[in-house]
Amino acid sequence: MEEPAVGDVFGEMIKDAYAVHTGVGPRPLAGGRWPRPVIEVIERDDGLINGAPAGHYLEEPADWRPFDHRALRLVRGHVLDIGVGAGRTAVELQRRGMAVTGLDTSAGAIEVARKRGLRDTVLNTVDAYAVASARYDTFLLLGNNLGLLESLDRGPVLLDALARLANPGARLIAQGTDPYGTTDPVHVAYHQRNRERGRLGGQLRLRLRYRRLATEWFDYLNCSPAELEELVAGTRWRLKAIDDEDRPYYLAVLELAG
Amino acid sequence: MEEPAVGDVFGEMIKDAYAVHTGVGPRPLAGGRWPRPVIEVIERDDGLINGAPAGHYLEEPADWRPFDHRALRLVRGHVLDIGVGAGRTAVELQRRGMAVTGLDTSAGAIEVARKRGLRDTVLNTVDAYAVASARYDTFLLLGNNLGLLESLDRGPVLLDALARLANPGARLIAQGTDPYGTTDPVHVAYHQRNRERGRLGGQLRLRLRYRRLATEWFDYLNCSPAELEELVAGTRWRLKAIDDEDRPYYLAVLELAG
Repeated sequence: MEEPAVGDVFGEMIKDAYAVHTGVGPRPLAGGRWPRPVIEVIERDDGLINGAPAGHYLEEPADWRPFDHRALRLVRGHVLDIGVGAGRTAVELQRRGMAVTGLDTSAGAIEVARKRGLRDTVLNTVDAYAVASARYDTFLLLGNNLGLLESLDRGPVLLDALARLANPGARLIAQGTDPYGTTDPVHVAYHQRNRERGRLGGQLRLRLRYRRLATEWFDYLNCSPAELEELVAGTRWRLKAIDDEDRPYYLAVLELAG
Repeated sequence: MEEPAVGDVFGEMIKDAYAVHTGVGPRPLAGGRWPRPVIEVIERDDGLINGAPAGHYLEEPADWRPFDHRALRLVRGHVLDIGVGAGRTAVELQRRGMAVTGLDTSAGAIEVARKRGLRDTVLNTVDAYAVASARYDTFLLLGNNLGLLESLDRGPVLLDALARLANPGARLIAQGTDPYGTTDPVHVAYHQRNRERGRLGGQLRLRLRYRRLATEWFDYLNCSPAELEELVAGTRWRLKAIDDEDRPYYLAVLELAG
């Protein structure tokens, strides 16, 4: 088989999902006739593959899961929404009159977020953006984007970059997933395999695919609150609260140390 | 990455789709809590990947596409439904009082078709089953299963096996897709690449994936009616009619030569 090309998988997918959602412009059709659902394909390095309808990136607040609503109640001041995607939560914050900036590394995602009305966007990595003079009071990592902490090595580096973008007393609200409640043998074996390789059990090695595009392989971290506490120790952040009302999903609230 | 294991991809997928559909038994859940849609993942040998919700294998007649209804109106006598899957069309024929046998190579598919009430099932390949003494008046290849003809080499061999299972005057109703109407550069380039390798343009090289399972790579033929006519020539079958009212999808009606 030919390897897929490396490209803006998320952007191409979200542009198609947005076209299907709005019915405007060229969009995927079966036989040039019937709407074709847009599916995000996620490969894991143990050969596991998973498809998920991309529509959830465009969901209105009425369709959100409860923890997303609770997360937005914790927001204050100037907000940086990291991995803003199609602007699902950022557009809602803007609608509520909050000052919100959406950051993403996907040009296609930023394009869709802007079409949906998000005014302030940044196409960049956190690391590169951390040299900017902008400062924020709240950082959002929603849609399971606590996973962007990647690993015990990379997580503190990302948190350091965010500390450079932070006003005094800034807060970081991250939605994560505790992977260890599962009894699915596929996942239990994967956690064990990871540990044998010196990785955290839920340190997923993934790539996304859409049509003929793939991302590079990347780490994405599903960790327990205890593992998160270990990762945060030694950074300029403190873990202030865990809201695990919707276990295994949780919200972690971090605050910048004084 | 570890290669996925070879196994009954379709069966595992359709069992999960059926569990989601009925709400009975263990089924995929996100976070052990929210239903997770079951997605069929199809890889093509040019690196293209496509995900499609598996629910359409379980659709009731009210949700079918028009050509499926027209196909069932062409059925007569004892019917062999080839690639019966979850029994979408066979269960409906049985409901109408027809004598129908469902054949599939997937144990999981046969299990689901039987749970849905299909009484007469065969877990086998057409080739191996063709030594049986059963005889049929109609063969159905629906759900795009004209694709099972695979290639100009393999198609006539499959048609020969079906001729051995046929009563005099038997009819074969196959639903296909003419691939050449598309202007999508990904598909146009793929057709060209196939021709350069001595294959029919729409002779897809595919594998299915679900969770940690994959099929072997196999050929699946999307051909034009003209290509089908060429394939049928020299077999014991004659192409009697093409219904292309829902282009690019079509129904081909073949009859056994006298």
